[in-house]
Amino acid sequence: MHLFYQPNFSELSALLDDEAFHAAKVLRLREGEAVRVTDGQGSWFDAIVQQNSPKRCDLKVTQQTRQTPKPFSIEIALAPTKNMDRIEWFVEKATEIGIDTISFFYTKHSERRNMKLERLHKIAVSAMKQSLQAFLPEIREVGDFTKYIPTVTSTQKFIAHLPENRTPLHILKQAQPMQQYTVLIGPEGDFTEAEIQLTQQYDFEMATLGNTRLRTETAALVACQTLHSVNYIAQS
Amino acid sequence: MHLFYQPNFSELSALLDDEAFHAAKVLRLREGEAVRVTDGQGSWFDAIVQQNSPKRCDLKVTQQTRQTPKPFSIEIALAPTKNMDRIEWFVEKATEIGIDTISFFYTKHSERRNMKLERLHKIAVSAMKQSLQAFLPEIREVGDFTKYIPTVTSTQKFIAHLPENRTPLHILKQAQPMQQYTVLIGPEGDFTEAEIQLTQQYDFEMATLGNTRLRTETAALVACQTLHSVNYIAQS
Repeated sequence: MHLFYQPNFSELSALLDDEAFHAAKVLRLREGEAVRVTDGQGSWFDAIVQQNSPKRCDLKVTQQTRQTPKPFSIEIALAPTKNMDRIEWFVEKATEIGIDTISFFYTKHSERRNMKLERLHKIAVSAMKQSLQAFLPEIREVGDFTKYIPTVTSTQKFIAHLPENRTPLHILKQAQPMQQYTVLIGPEGDFTEAEIQLTQQYDFEMATLGNTRLRTETAALVACQTLHSVNYIAQS
Repeated sequence: MHLFYQPNFSELSALLDDEAFHAAKVLRLREGEAVRVTDGQGSWFDAIVQQNSPKRCDLKVTQQTRQTPKPFSIEIALAPTKNMDRIEWFVEKATEIGIDTISFFYTKHSERRNMKLERLHKIAVSAMKQSLQAFLPEIREVGDFTKYIPTVTSTQKFIAHLPENRTPLHILKQAQPMQQYTVLIGPEGDFTEAEIQLTQQYDFEMATLGNTRLRTETAALVACQTLHSVNYIAQS
């Protein structure tokens, strides 16, 4: 069963662009063949091919099912690494595990100041399909760190940073279940004092992700996985 | 402070091979300069350069400290993926987080039947240094799955596989703290019935790693991280 991704599928009842091309020219789907489409917004549609051309593949929907949404949401906000491979791995693996928003901000010590979001979007779509999910994470640039911090409305906000002169609290212990989480992951050069102070003014909790020093993209994935674990434990 | 890796350092009090070359030709360390060396067996040595040549860098140790070993051990045993990038990514990230043994086995549906362990070893050394750890994971091939399974002596053994007709139990709930764990991760084509049966004869518990379908290398890392979480929760 071929799985496609088509945003706004319920309005369209068709595949467009790359997906239509893939259906017509690569898979050579015929009228009457069954496919499955996700709209990336939580729904799967079982459908039958009506007509198939490289720009548009019309489908007749036979059934719609919904993926149960998580009772919590995860935003990981990070300073992108110089090496884009590392970011690509993070986007793929975080999507496989389950993530709602990936936000890239720029700090004083950022290694990179521009992103190719289109490529990351493709990687997320592929990972969503591979892991049989129907929710596509939002991937976005949020610009300058100091402008982004005041806009965060999540119910539990963390910065992955060790406080001075205090025992660091682990996110596994600090995170409450069923929250809307945002976790900030700094660049390899770390946040500046001023950047940290700003997060404290906006009620971000300092937390550690473990005993070892992790690369930016590793910390980002560990944060995501840990929040899943917190919620799994709580639900039983 | 430069961090080097030298196996058997206590006997040698010197850097050899690539590390000696790096010290002499790349970093151009002078007599009297301070370095830090890990032996990959849990110790760090602060030392002073005595003499520096491309094949051997003699050091005088001023202090030895030990990394506290974890009160549990993790072996992840997996069927290597066709794409070696994915395995390399796993080795790097698992080493950053902390892992004792990475074992590659071959099953009926394995995508790959040979490994380049030397390159994986280098990646692990680099990740160990990057994450400021002193324990180097053992990376090994354990050959045919059916021959490997009876040799596993870990105190808690898991296979990442969903049982038929039973609610899958999550490794987060099943794992007891402070054990010697082995977790088996199958190839994308999954284990065969016979392979699963064999693990059941040898008391491997079936467990799930979460709600989504994960790639082999993602599952392997999630298993590793989850076992750290289990032990972190238990220690407080």
